[in-house]
Amino acid sequence: MIKTDILIIGAGPTGLFTVFEAGLLKLKCHLIDALPQAGGQCTELYPKKPIYDIPAYPEILAGDLTVKLLEQCKQFEPGFTLGERAETLEKQEDGTFIVTTNKGTKHHAPVVAIAGGLGSFEPRKPLIDNLADYEDKGVEYMVKDPELYRNKRVVIAGGGDSALDWSIFLSNVASQVTLIHRRNEFRGHLDSVEQVQQLKNEGKINLITPAEVTNIYGDKRVAGVEVTVKDEAPIKVDCDHFIPLFGLSPKLGPIADWGFEIEKNAIKVNNCLDYQTNIPGVFAIGDVNTYPGKLKLILCGFHEATLMCQSAYQIINPGKRYVLKYTTVAGVDGFDGTRKEAPKPVIKAFD
Amino acid sequence: MIKTDILIIGAGPTGLFTVFEAGLLKLKCHLIDALPQAGGQCTELYPKKPIYDIPAYPEILAGDLTVKLLEQCKQFEPGFTLGERAETLEKQEDGTFIVTTNKGTKHHAPVVAIAGGLGSFEPRKPLIDNLADYEDKGVEYMVKDPELYRNKRVVIAGGGDSALDWSIFLSNVASQVTLIHRRNEFRGHLDSVEQVQQLKNEGKINLITPAEVTNIYGDKRVAGVEVTVKDEAPIKVDCDHFIPLFGLSPKLGPIADWGFEIEKNAIKVNNCLDYQTNIPGVFAIGDVNTYPGKLKLILCGFHEATLMCQSAYQIINPGKRYVLKYTTVAGVDGFDGTRKEAPKPVIKAFD
Repeated sequence: MIKTDILIIGAGPTGLFTVFEAGLLKLKCHLIDALPQAGGQCTELYPKKPIYDIPAYPEILAGDLTVKLLEQCKQFEPGFTLGERAETLEKQEDGTFIVTTNKGTKHHAPVVAIAGGLGSFEPRKPLIDNLADYEDKGVEYMVKDPELYRNKRVVIAGGGDSALDWSIFLSNVASQVTLIHRRNEFRGHLDSVEQVQQLKNEGKINLITPAEVTNIYGDKRVAGVEVTVKDEAPIKVDCDHFIPLFGLSPKLGPIADWGFEIEKNAIKVNNCLDYQTNIPGVFAIGDVNTYPGKLKLILCGFHEATLMCQSAYQIINPGKRYVLKYTTVAGVDGFDGTRKEAPKPVIKAFD
Repeated sequence: MIKTDILIIGAGPTGLFTVFEAGLLKLKCHLIDALPQAGGQCTELYPKKPIYDIPAYPEILAGDLTVKLLEQCKQFEPGFTLGERAETLEKQEDGTFIVTTNKGTKHHAPVVAIAGGLGSFEPRKPLIDNLADYEDKGVEYMVKDPELYRNKRVVIAGGGDSALDWSIFLSNVASQVTLIHRRNEFRGHLDSVEQVQQLKNEGKINLITPAEVTNIYGDKRVAGVEVTVKDEAPIKVDCDHFIPLFGLSPKLGPIADWGFEIEKNAIKVNNCLDYQTNIPGVFAIGDVNTYPGKLKLILCGFHEATLMCQSAYQIINPGKRYVLKYTTVAGVDGFDGTRKEAPKPVIKAFD
């Protein structure tokens, strides 16, 4: 059982900034995310795209925003349960909560913050009859750990940035990379497209287009895929892994059944105070919540996280009064023993 | 008469970010500030101090935060009335407002946003009997335009960063700089202290300590100051300007009489929707407002500004529906003709 002060569902920008604000109040956080890495949409959907409305950043790439937020909260040593989806929320008699993931990992905390964005990202799956038989037996819809493919033969399907970028990355890890797309044209960053062209020229990526994987074969595990090129008879491509990267679509998922008031696919919260849901002790912050005037903007999630942490502090330290301290004045004490503070003024008489 | 869509009282971080968010909604802004430059406290009180709780900035100097915010909103061409204090707010019959400064400058707008921080900064004045006689006649409490001192003889009084920094700066502008402090010890950034020492050694700054300016002389304008060193007889220092830099203290000032509900020296707002005050069409955002759970943090001002702009849009464009567009998707169109947008994906078939 993982124990923490604030259990955060969702490791996107709002979840990560919660770690920082909670840390200033000496509260520890643990984050659960269905994706294999922190950053949420910013990292998974558009890491190379610029955002223009993060305050004081005239422009920042979504991936860099995640890097900065991770750096900012690092000193407060957040825990992570990644690649697992929060499945159930159980309120205990003492008012605390147990959250269990789809893999059975249990987490225990007095406060839960849902920072789940648009929901957990579920992969879009290709229509292949026996696909489900091979899930987690060589078929993966996300690359969670590239090392899994070290010296293996990999078939990737898809025509967008994920398919291009993972083909590039795995061409240095896997023994063989085959990229299959139902059209001749790929759609991605200029940069990625140019790299794939070069790797193809060097023979490091095999390209089969326009084509579709129409069947999988193998005894217990994936041994290869059948690829249909237009109306021709299927050809066989032996491989150890088949990775269809057809995009992810967000679904509120199991959270929708946890007993919250749901409106427009989002969780209603008390925006007049602390973004608490109808379940006391459970807050919803960032894109996952709704209230009058709500804007689904990252900067709003930052504010909601910050106000929420004040109420979390009260729940965890009943009766104790918290006095706001400015970081410029009081500095920041990390849980890792680090201290940040403004340089002290010098007091000096001149010679 | 200066006309604009949103008239912002206060050019600190919250006011500046309002310009950006309003710009996304195609609304123009004009800012009034009692200080001679934008940035509010950040620029005036602690430009060289680090802030640690701006989201995605593990550390940023307050002065740099202002620079970034100015850069971010520049494309929306804000107007500025600086060095003037907003004195009166008059509601017109058509529901619009006229705001007049202490210098008589008039501004007209359908929406007013008070982003006045802790209030307008009023200088602390030394106790010199005839000080008031020379105000604006050679006595200034802030350096508004350094060029005023070009080739003039300047006496600066004070023992902190402002006194040190302006002595350094003006040593290259004025024909003579005398720095007077009632103690031998100065208190400032190491950097500034070291520079003053060097300029003193080079004869570019005259230092008189421990001493106080006890009288001013001159016919109509400042012609010099009398300086008392300990219990000795006063000495005369001829000069064209006397600049006492004894710190600024924020006062809510005239705003307190504009008819707002005031609580704890701050303006009560409707935090359940749009941070509007009890005067419809007038909003209060950032440190100047108060509501249940309020935190006087810069990041909260950013959120409040953003939500406020939505209601401002409705007031200015009645009945028109605004659909939120993400900057990553829609880009940003500046009023200056510039356009920022994410690079378009490439669609390409491989050779």
